This record gives sequence, C-alpha cells and structure tokens, in this order.
Amino acid sequence: MNRLWPHETSGISDELFVRGKVPMTKEEIRSVSLSKLRLNKKDTFIDIGAGTGSMTIEAGMRITEGKVFAIERKVEGIQLITENAKRFSLENVDIIHGIAPKDIWHLPKMDKVFIGGTGGNIKDIFDWMDEKLVSNGRVVMNFITIENLYKSIMEIKSRNYIDMDVINISVTKGRSISNITMMEGQNPIYIISARKE
Amino acid sequence: MNRLWPHETSGISDELFVRGKVPMTKEEIRSVSLSKLRLNKKDTFIDIGAGTGSMTIEAGMRITEGKVFAIERKVEGIQLITENAKRFSLENVDIIHGIAPKDIWHLPKMDKVFIGGTGGNIKDIFDWMDEKLVSNGRVVMNFITIENLYKSIMEIKSRNYIDMDVINISVTKGRSISNITMMEGQNPIYIISARKE
Amino acid sequence: MNRLWPHETSGISDELFVRGKVPMTKEEIRSVSLSKLRLNKKDTFIDIGAGTGSMTIEAGMRITEGKVFAIERKVEGIQLITENAKRFSLENVDIIHGIAPKDIWHLPKMDKVFIGGTGGNIKDIFDWMDEKLVSNGRVVMNFITIENLYKSIMEIKSRNYIDMDVINISVTKGRSISNITMMEGQNPIYIISARKE
Amino acid sequence: MNRLWPHETSGISDELFVRGKVPMTKEEIRSVSLSKLRLNKKDTFIDIGAGTGSMTIEAGMRITEGKVFAIERKVEGIQLITENAKRFSLENVDIIHGIAPKDIWHLPKMDKVFIGGTGGNIKDIFDWMDEKLVSNGRVVMNFITIENLYKSIMEIKSRNYIDMDVINISVTKGRSISNITMMEGQNPIYIISARKE
Repeated sequence: MNRLWPHETSGISDELFVRGKVPMTKEEIRSVSLSKLRLNKKDTFIDIGAGTGSMTIEAGMRITEGKVFAIERKVEGIQLITENAKRFSLENVDIIHGIAPKDIWHLPKMDKVFIGGTGGNIKDIFDWMDEKLVSNGRVVMNFITIENLYKSIMEIKSRNYIDMDVINISVTKGRSISNITMMEGQNPIYIISARKE
Repeated sequence: MNRLWPHETSGISDELFVRGKVPMTKEEIRSVSLSKLRLNKKDTFIDIGAGTGSMTIEAGMRITEGKVFAIERKVEGIQLITENAKRFSLENVDIIHGIAPKDIWHLPKMDKVFIGGTGGNIKDIFDWMDEKLVSNGRVVMNFITIENLYKSIMEIKSRNYIDMDVINISVTKGRSISNITMMEGQNPIYIISARKE
Repeated sequence: MNRLWPHETSGISDELFVRGKVPMTKEEIRSVSLSKLRLNKKDTFIDIGAGTGSMTIEAGMRITEGKVFAIERKVEGIQLITENAKRFSLENVDIIHGIAPKDIWHLPKMDKVFIGGTGGNIKDIFDWMDEKLVSNGRVVMNFITIENLYKSIMEIKSRNYIDMDVINISVTKGRSISNITMMEGQNPIYIISARKE
Repeated sequence: MNRLWPHETSGISDELFVRGKVPMTKEEIRSVSLSKLRLNKKDTFIDIGAGTGSMTIEAGMRITEGKVFAIERKVEGIQLITENAKRFSLENVDIIHGIAPKDIWHLPKMDKVFIGGTGGNIKDIFDWMDEKLVSNGRVVMNFITIENLYKSIMEIKSRNYIDMDVINISVTKGRSISNITMMEGQNPIYIISARKE
C-alpha cells in the first residue's frame, strides 16, 4: 500500500479506498471538487455526507496543519471512513456519526465545506453555514438531482454568497476488452461552488 | 494576488492565470489530469506543449522539492509561462523554447510526463519516453481529436505500459444571466493515463 | 433545392434552412424532439417560440393531413418561418406573430405541443394547455436553463400529466481539419415530454 | 398496442419493442440516426447488425413504398426482428440470418445503409458498399468503441465519400424517485454519416 500511495502524493485512485455499498465520489469528480474548494494547509474543513470518506481523506492529505471533520449518517459509512483514514494514516480527522446540521452545531467555524449528500436538508445546512462558514469561506456541493441543484442555486442567490460557479461533469470511461476500447457513460454530476461574502 | 492565491492552496481559478491567445487547459481538466499524474513532492516532471503554463504552475505547486520542466514551441507561450511562473512565485521550473522530443533529449529522467499538445509527434514522444520516463513513471495526455487519441492508445498498447486509463470529460458551465442559469457546453477532452512497467 | 430535399424524405440538414440570427434547434435535438412528439399525420400541432421554424417545417412534413401552427414573437423569426415554409413547400402551416399563450387562445384544440422558447411564461402556457391540449395529447419542451427545467417539472407534476420523460442530450460535433477530427462540444439541451391524462 | 402506436405515427418508445438480451439502439440514438439517413419513401435500405430490429422497424415505417432488409447473426435477434416486424405490421422487410457482407452480396443496390453492429468487418462492409451502395446513397454508422470509430473514419476518407459527419451523442435520463429526478448517464454513441459520391 505505502509504495503505491506514499503520503506526499496528490491524486488517489478509487481502487485504493476500502469501499462498501455506500456510494463513493469518483476520482474525477473528487479532484474537480477539491480544486473548487481551494484548500489551504491550515483550513478547518467538513465533509457533510462523507460516505466512504474519499473526499475526507484526499482533503485531509492537503490540510496538513488544519482540521478535518466528516459527518455521515450510516453506520457502514462511519466504518469505511474510519478504515480509510487509517489506511492513509490520516490523523487530523474527526468522524461524526449523525445528521447534518443537527449534529454539527457544536463544531468550530469552517473555512471550507463540502456537501456530497444532503438527505434533503439543504435549507437547514445553509442556515448552519450562515453561522459556521467564515467570511471568504467556500462551499462546494455535488448533486445528481435537478431538484437539489435548483434549490441550492436558490439558497445561494438568496444569501450572502458571491462567485457562484455551477458546472455539470460527464465522465465516460474507456473499458478495454481484447483489442477495443468501449466508452461507458457514468452519471453526470452537478458541482456548485460559491464563496461567502 | 497573494491574498487571493496563497502559496499553500490547491486549486487555481482560470482567471488567476495570465492568458493570451494560446489555448489553456481549463480548471476542471487540469485538476483531473493532475490527479491522474499522482504527483509526488520530489518528482521530476515535464509539461510538453505547455501553452500558458497552467499545468506547469499547478504541478509545480505540488512538486515542492522536485524539478519541473515546460516545453513550448510558441514565443507567446514562453512569455506567458514565464509570467505565470513569476506570478505564482514558482522557482523550480525550467522553461524550454522548442519542439518535443527534439529539444528535450538532454533533460534528466522524468517521473511524470504531461502531454497537452503533441503537434503530431506522438510516436517520437513515445520513443523519447522509452528512454526518459522512469520505470513506474506515469504519463498523462489530453486530446481533442479522435486520431491522436487512437494513435496514442495504439502506442501505449504496443509498448511496455500498464494500467492504461482512457476517459472523456465533458464539462458544461452554468452562466448566470439575470435570474437564470444557462448551461453552456465546452469541448470534451479525452484524458489518457498509463504507468510504465 | 428539390433535388437535395425531396418532399417525401425524413431528416433535414441544418444547412437547408434559411437562418438568421434567431437561434435554431439543431438537427439532432430536432429529431429527438420530433420522436418524443409521436406525431400522427392527422395531428393538430403547435410550435411555441418557433424561431426559424425548423421544428415547424419538419413536423409539418409528417403531419400531411393535419394542421400546423407556429407562434413567434420576433419579426425576424416570422420572416424566417415564412421563408422556410415556402422553401419546403409546406402549405398546412399558420404562422402567428405574437406571444404565447396570450395570442393563441383562439386556436383549436391541439394534439401535440412543442415548446422551444418560453420567454418565462411557463405557468401561463401550462394553464393554456389545461384547456387546449387534448386528452392523451403530448407536450415536448426544450430547455437550456436549470430554472425553466425545474419549473416545468413542477408544473407537470402538479397537473394531470403522465409518462413524464426528462432527458439531457449533449452533442459533440467532429470538425475535420486537414487530417484530424476535432470534437467540439455544443450546448446540452434538456428535453421534457409528457402525456396529458 | 394499435391504440398506443398507430401505423401513421413517427417516433416509437423503446418500451413498445419486444426485447431480449440483444442490445437495442435507444430511441434518441435511433431518431438521430434515422434523420441522418435522410430516408425516402421509395428507398431500398439495409440494417446491418439489426439486433432487435428497432431501426429496421422505424425505417420501414418511413419507407412505405420501398424495400427494407435486415441482417443479423444471432438466432435470438432474428426471432426478435420477426416478432417486432409483426407487431408493427411491417410487410416490406426481408430478414436475413447471417453475417455481413458475406451473406448480402446477392441483394440489390442500396440507397441507404445503417450499420449498428460490425462485428469487426468494417473494411469488408466498405468493400461491399463500393459495389452495392448507389451514387448519392448514404451510410450511417453507430459506434461505442474508439477503434471502430477511427477505422471507419479512415475507410470513409480513403474511398469516394463526401459530407462526412461525425458526432457523439451523450444522453442522460432522468429517473423519478418520489419527488426527485435523478439524472442517469447512458453510454455515449458515436454516429458517423456520409454520402457516396
């Protein structure tokens, strides 16, 4: 493991994470989302709806002197995040079993927030960010549904955010079979990012 | 500038680069390509067909203890790369005005190679990598044409590479006009990556 | 002209239409939208926001024994639709200069409705369809904005429609330059279709 | 059935075809491919690698006074094409169990050729078209692999074809779950069309 993925590398293959049945943010979506977060090594960061923890881990690698939080509602997710944090020797991460924003009001102020799974609490999470996301802090969100995308755009527009960026990323993966390369579609992901004023 | 983009951040907005008429790898493609390169802080890396130098700069940020080379055939490109390296205080980069592989045979062995523009010399660059890319080193390529994509897949298959990964990324950008978000398509990019045996 | 496009052919190249600065539904989007309309040769059909009339013309070709209406607010559009109808010898089309639904309340009941441009009157057009779209009639809509897409989904869900189908189509066009084929992205289009109960 | 899909309608829902395990050209790809074929009602047309026969059927609907051939190598495919032709009351279709071009040299000259599955015989099929596709006749091909796409572009360029058109279509389908619309990616399809000089 350590030879394949030394601590100082950036960019982690999906295969290196322990995965269960919990959906995982794929490498391509993860790297774009990480870029949009504009991470600093001293950031305080939270991964909301952390799933397998792939975003938590890769963000944690870059936040070498900061603090990383991950919240996930499923027990299986909590186990996977814990296992992956261990696998990548990540020591600056607090893993919270619970629901956002209900169970994260006690946390310190955040410089960066990633939202991978909202479970429908978009408005509540924005209320929480009104209080907990610092000025000039950034939020990055991943969506697969039109409704959550639309509602989040509306929340951002009605609150004090600037530089909103909305993209859709559609990744096609080539699968090598004998001597051909079949291009297989994946679910396109909407990525919203914005900066708090 | 320094307040917007402190040295320790990862993820750079396209707007922060000095840009001319030279085509630039966009943020989303850049971050995925950087991820596929699996950069190490001590890597020796070359950006072939560096254009504005956006890949050179962002790779250079991560290769804090290594060495970065950029080769570009256009004078305007050389000026942009130089200016961008200065803007981001990058000191570990050698900028070469010339054509690959003709003008890079004197360079040391590379751990990672990024090819953003081939100018049609695909076979020659693979010949160069046969000698200059280290074992377990990685190559990442960006393409917009079917022909260069196909030829590169053939080169990789006929030489000693493993773990070939072929993807196509199609990014749609939302443009905010009054109270609507128009989704505008960008050119899809093929990204190939592979590891030398 | 007639040699290039005989009356009995299906499938019209974009180049065969007279085009101004008015946006035109491209061939690929047009053919999918036409398919979703499930046109019958005896249909009464309206193209709302007809633009250059490309949908009007191609639908009119299939509705050989029915009736086709086109409404468009721009004078330039009206001229283009008129010219294109003439070019393709379409005689069963009524072209209305005006705004929907304000200027189409006097029309007969419709079997099929295509909405290419709403100008923001989505709710009003659905009110009009409540009265003017027959039972088992179909509506097909094209969108490029998240907001209009979302609002239309909400209208369909809150009224008596079934079989809602939401797709996004992203077309990339190969441009041949000397001996290469550059793949160029176009704006992705959302297509909604539904059947009235 | 007949109420859902009367003979005179254009545009057939995927659900109306009898389907087995044989891959089927989806509605959106079918309607774009049909458009690119520029069908005439008196055409002689062949669907090579006809699969379930969905292209055969929908082309046959438009070729009301012409002749339609379908060739398929799998027995299951032959059964499905036969069943679908019956379901849609298509009487102008000859179904051939065999391999192209080996088993279609005895057929008359074609006005239009659709190639949905090549089984790797691209060059041989082009040799066959050199003889059997009429001047000004059109060929439309669907691909999912880079290699077949590339080879077909090369064949078209090296023979007497004009107006080559290469597109990639990526369709995302919205799946309604309770009150949300999840956008699910499908495999992108390359569609090549060209006209023989």
